[in-house]
Amino acid sequence: MSIDRIKPDLIPFLETYLPNTEEVAQTNKPFVTLTYAQSIDARISLGPGIRTTISDIETKVMTHYLRYHHDGILIGSGTVLADDPCLNCKWHKDDTDTNFAANSPTPIILDTHQKWKFKDSKMYHLFKKTEGKSPIVVVHNKPIVEEQDVKYLVIEDGNDKKIDWKILLQKLYEKYNIKSIMVEGGAYVINDLLLRPDIVDSLIVTIGSTYLGSGGVQVSPRSATSLTDVDWWKGKKDSIMAARLSSEQI
Amino acid sequence: MSIDRIKPDLIPFLETYLPNTEEVAQTNKPFVTLTYAQSIDARISLGPGIRTTISDIETKVMTHYLRYHHDGILIGSGTVLADDPCLNCKWHKDDTDTNFAANSPTPIILDTHQKWKFKDSKMYHLFKKTEGKSPIVVVHNKPIVEEQDVKYLVIEDGNDKKIDWKILLQKLYEKYNIKSIMVEGGAYVINDLLLRPDIVDSLIVTIGSTYLGSGGVQVSPRSATSLTDVDWWKGKKDSIMAARLSSEQI
Repeated sequence: MSIDRIKPDLIPFLETYLPNTEEVAQTNKPFVTLTYAQSIDARISLGPGIRTTISDIETKVMTHYLRYHHDGILIGSGTVLADDPCLNCKWHKDDTDTNFAANSPTPIILDTHQKWKFKDSKMYHLFKKTEGKSPIVVVHNKPIVEEQDVKYLVIEDGNDKKIDWKILLQKLYEKYNIKSIMVEGGAYVINDLLLRPDIVDSLIVTIGSTYLGSGGVQVSPRSATSLTDVDWWKGKKDSIMAARLSSEQI
Repeated sequence: MSIDRIKPDLIPFLETYLPNTEEVAQTNKPFVTLTYAQSIDARISLGPGIRTTISDIETKVMTHYLRYHHDGILIGSGTVLADDPCLNCKWHKDDTDTNFAANSPTPIILDTHQKWKFKDSKMYHLFKKTEGKSPIVVVHNKPIVEEQDVKYLVIEDGNDKKIDWKILLQKLYEKYNIKSIMVEGGAYVINDLLLRPDIVDSLIVTIGSTYLGSGGVQVSPRSATSLTDVDWWKGKKDSIMAARLSSEQI
């Protein structure tokens, strides 16, 4: 159940990018961390629906450390259907800190058209073993038959037919007390959020030393955007960039 | 004419990736370094023909340091037409090392359809000021009127209608004694060479902390490929990955 130790120098590196509870208390908006792993050529997988290993063990541990510091973990339905991810947190402080369900963030699945089922997913089995939490599923309409242990959050699309992030965050905060959210993907969600400095508070990108090629699923926002407060961490095989989105467009 | 000092830790970082003269003497093949600067989203410019600043001054100096260590610098005609680059070397060891033309690599322009003119280019003016060398232009046929100071190297395309790198390197070595070549772009040349571990000896990629967006010119090879001997250098704004291409495909 446990996981390797995090590289000691990653802890101070990440410190200023972790959720800021004071800011949340002032703004009533959950702190949002956008995080993903990509190849040098900005691909997050070899192709649609192909689960692809990019990051090395040293940066994988970081993902669990970040999950430890967030109330919720949000992904789109494409990724959840393709990857059947666990989304739980295996990192723990010490040997006494073994409540893995409590340490894990609440999965928040953007599944407006209800394509995903919780039952028999990896998340479901972890929840049953008390090693993870049950999910909040974001839908356009509540299903006729609701799944057990699933909380449904009904959200209408914004005017541009995309998710209205502000309303979603507000509801997650008010209804479920989610004060910090880590967004892990997929590409559609990431590309949208890379242009939303009003929503995203921290950006953490792992770059694996590989090329996945032009057939892969890429992360690249619709338009250019610049970053501030940039810092880099170098590992053996991967590099990590932490930053904030700038409100100034290029 | 001069340039900032190189970051001291970049010199040992680059050491094992610089041209290896012993290897060249054994193989009779020029040492090839593939190098470029990209955004996080693997774009080398905002769009075709748009010259785009990506790397910070600290990594820009590295480019000149690398040029100092190579006999030739090769780019495609698209890039030379779009950017009108200098391609010379401004880095020098110390105050006595001021023969900038001698320190500069020979520009090698892949211009098989002869779209580019040397006359009145930035390269031309640097050559006239003895701050850079005159170019070798790689063509399919010698032009009827040859430009002064230009050496023309006639090369036929390979069977796949692309440049035959092996023959090109061999001729550059035999005719012009070019023992090491730095390839700086553009995307077409880079994407082709990323899948040629038989040609490329070192890969050095600068990653600038910006997103250029999906309309930009991207580097991503036709298929996935892995790297070996990976090392990272972290700067304030940029990160640099040095590696070798693996002959094992993913």
